[in-house]
Amino acid sequence: MKIKELAMLIHGVVEGDGDADVTGLSGIETSNAGDLIFATDDEKLGFAEKSGASCVLTSKSTRAAMKPLVRVDNPKLAFLLLYNFMNKPAGREAFTDPSATISVSAKVGNNVWIDAGVRIGGNVSIGDNTIIEANAVIKKNCSIGSFCHIHPNVTLYDNVVLKDRVVLHSGVVLGADGFGYVREKDKIYKFPQLGRVIIENDVEIGANSTIDRGSLGDTVVGAGAKIDNLCQIAHNIKIGKNFIMAAQSGISGSVTIKDNVTMGGQVGIRDNVTIGNNAMIGAQSGVLGDLADGSVVWGTPSKSLIQTKREVIVLGWLTDNFIRIKKLLKGKI
Amino acid sequence: MKIKELAMLIHGVVEGDGDADVTGLSGIETSNAGDLIFATDDEKLGFAEKSGASCVLTSKSTRAAMKPLVRVDNPKLAFLLLYNFMNKPAGREAFTDPSATISVSAKVGNNVWIDAGVRIGGNVSIGDNTIIEANAVIKKNCSIGSFCHIHPNVTLYDNVVLKDRVVLHSGVVLGADGFGYVREKDKIYKFPQLGRVIIENDVEIGANSTIDRGSLGDTVVGAGAKIDNLCQIAHNIKIGKNFIMAAQSGISGSVTIKDNVTMGGQVGIRDNVTIGNNAMIGAQSGVLGDLADGSVVWGTPSKSLIQTKREVIVLGWLTDNFIRIKKLLKGKI
Amino acid sequence: MKIKELAMLIHGVVEGDGDADVTGLSGIETSNAGDLIFATDDEKLGFAEKSGASCVLTSKSTRAAMKPLVRVDNPKLAFLLLYNFMNKPAGREAFTDPSATISVSAKVGNNVWIDAGVRIGGNVSIGDNTIIEANAVIKKNCSIGSFCHIHPNVTLYDNVVLKDRVVLHSGVVLGADGFGYVREKDKIYKFPQLGRVIIENDVEIGANSTIDRGSLGDTVVGAGAKIDNLCQIAHNIKIGKNFIMAAQSGISGSVTIKDNVTMGGQVGIRDNVTIGNNAMIGAQSGVLGDLADGSVVWGTPSKSLIQTKREVIVLGWLTDNFIRIKKLLKGKI
Repeated sequence: MKIKELAMLIHGVVEGDGDADVTGLSGIETSNAGDLIFATDDEKLGFAEKSGASCVLTSKSTRAAMKPLVRVDNPKLAFLLLYNFMNKPAGREAFTDPSATISVSAKVGNNVWIDAGVRIGGNVSIGDNTIIEANAVIKKNCSIGSFCHIHPNVTLYDNVVLKDRVVLHSGVVLGADGFGYVREKDKIYKFPQLGRVIIENDVEIGANSTIDRGSLGDTVVGAGAKIDNLCQIAHNIKIGKNFIMAAQSGISGSVTIKDNVTMGGQVGIRDNVTIGNNAMIGAQSGVLGDLADGSVVWGTPSKSLIQTKREVIVLGWLTDNFIRIKKLLKGKI
Repeated sequence: MKIKELAMLIHGVVEGDGDADVTGLSGIETSNAGDLIFATDDEKLGFAEKSGASCVLTSKSTRAAMKPLVRVDNPKLAFLLLYNFMNKPAGREAFTDPSATISVSAKVGNNVWIDAGVRIGGNVSIGDNTIIEANAVIKKNCSIGSFCHIHPNVTLYDNVVLKDRVVLHSGVVLGADGFGYVREKDKIYKFPQLGRVIIENDVEIGANSTIDRGSLGDTVVGAGAKIDNLCQIAHNIKIGKNFIMAAQSGISGSVTIKDNVTMGGQVGIRDNVTIGNNAMIGAQSGVLGDLADGSVVWGTPSKSLIQTKREVIVLGWLTDNFIRIKKLLKGKI
Repeated sequence: MKIKELAMLIHGVVEGDGDADVTGLSGIETSNAGDLIFATDDEKLGFAEKSGASCVLTSKSTRAAMKPLVRVDNPKLAFLLLYNFMNKPAGREAFTDPSATISVSAKVGNNVWIDAGVRIGGNVSIGDNTIIEANAVIKKNCSIGSFCHIHPNVTLYDNVVLKDRVVLHSGVVLGADGFGYVREKDKIYKFPQLGRVIIENDVEIGANSTIDRGSLGDTVVGAGAKIDNLCQIAHNIKIGKNFIMAAQSGISGSVTIKDNVTMGGQVGIRDNVTIGNNAMIGAQSGVLGDLADGSVVWGTPSKSLIQTKREVIVLGWLTDNFIRIKKLLKGKI
């Protein structure tokens, strides 16, 4: 495709030879002749110029360059849209590996791909164009939508619901029993874990993450959530739209997360709290209470990001001046 | 069952129409006519009254209500005991899926359920009434007790011992090599990992948790332990009775945990320390030394809960008064 | 073998009866007659004397003892070298379980062991003497070296490269998509994840750890790295030689880790930083910026180990003296 043609697709402005050909997309480091790459600032544009690439997507505010440029509002977004345009997923035909074990009561849609060693239990339904990869286990009464992609070695316990376009990476476990016990004298009783896990449209869940079923109600992950690897979502959590959860974070039971919440890595949220819309929680925070809409917090226990940053500075200063502070208290200054 | 009949089972006192029928148990949010629910305080009792449920289990100290009540000492415990009474697990018959691969030297007890794709190695023994779900892998010389439940995609390395009524959720890995190396000049040598993992009676282990085999001795988890998802228990750890370990916590090598210890989420314990009986460790703590019996600690490094809470308050106050403190040190106050 | 014979193998000096026989190696607690054990200090030597063992490996600085000793520079290293000498891995013959599903385009080397339920995709190549255990899934275009050991239920996505002698414990997931999205107004777009995961020689990765593929470039783990259980390595990370990463640690995208870096458990590293050669990062640290060669850091945000230790002490002292500090500020002292 010519540079001027692809520029039209992304509403870009060509600077330089728009008739040159682009044959692929790549990163700056790995680019060769024919590749289109992107550079978000002048420093990266410098690397881009030295690369083998034939065309650079960039923003409207970077400098001029020695290679053909296409200027757009958001070069990273334009790059991914171009990528998606050039890589429309090929329609797969229906396939079931003979080593898969599928209950006779399962209902499988059109063009579903079921790979080797997959186990599908009774009364499971699977929507059209869904892919279930090798050795995944789907237990009974699960409902899986269309265009889902379940990677190898995933486990779905009974009654899990996946809506459409849900992606589960390898090792994900949905619907295991929540961590609910009642202690009475010297004995620990397990509380019934009867609810479901419901995953709304367009959710992607990273490798080896775990989401427990609700105890009496359900655990719900709202549409558009992106959950990274090794995350833990406990029983009866309700998560709103477009949740972002970075790796190794965990949420305790019965928490409510409203819409557009963003969470850094290794965050912990205590049980029974509510996180307001658009809240942002810094990495490694420990959240011990409700957060209002629009909160930006950090630290354990979490406080406003500004306050925690101040506390870090103040503690450093007090430590550097510790001898003087001790003297002052002794009346020696 | 009539309300007055089930009240007898749990030593409860009926308040209202004891002749009404109860047909199921549910949570407040999801309850319908015929359901029994529980409400531990007056606020929840208010929600319970507005629900469709026919009967409410409650404590002896809540107010009167518009629905039939059954009053007991511990409504949550009574609810679970009723649930267990109504849901005695059906006796399963023996079953082995033809796609399972079982060594000829394995000894399988009565009424064992072995699902599709399970792999059982040489000299494994499996007690009566145990369930092994799809694609679990049990390597050689493992010993598994009675009434165990091994969920899909679990891995047991060689020589793992499970006593009776052990539940392993999906993705659990028991018996992988401990993290033991010896560094000598520029080379890292792996130390032999020869010990076993031994899991005593009535232990439940959450999804994707990992417990490493002992290096020279064994790693032992005592009876009644409840371990949440994504926990890590390193080599040569000895854990006493009734241990509670919330999600994403980790314990380093050669730690001793005595009886009835409770650990919040995302806790870390350094190697070679001893945690005393009944100790409680707050979420995200980092424990760097021994803890005495009955300790209640929080923070990194962990201190008594009271001390850490005080430090949080003091640092906040010092930060808010930082300008005045600086002035004081300069002699300007 | 006689004590004097094995002493020669490890350049040790015998003290006591060098003609006694050693029949096995064990730990102090579990030792019986005929066993050789090791004791690194006088306290452990005391336990060793009371054990059933026939011979004790110890250092040159411990006291005399009632049992035959072999003195060496590093008893733990000598013990493992002896262990390795006595336990040379038996050459396995080639084996493929009939339940494995192997693409016709896969190239399998000599003496490869492929256990039950393994899935090997198209164009995979597997070097000589590699072991792939039950229910592991190797997707297409992966390249696996010689003498690798892939434990049960591991998943390799497309294009993963393992060099020689790589050990992957159960539940490891290599090559899942990185956590890369572009947010534009109310929509979250997934950024292309096209790179590979490359694991160099002699790397060992613990159970349920995850390493994401690069986005445009590759994710690379250098030779000799030892990665513990439940660790997360995000996309486009470049790791040097002999990296040590304790359990439940995580590294964000595009981080560079130079050679001989050591990381405690539950550490987090923010994205796009560089960690210098020989850096040591204490457990639970949160690293927010570049670290120079030889840095020794601790805390969140991480500072030098000495500074963080000082801050812990100062905060404790200020808290203990809080009332006096408040009085001082009010002019009452």
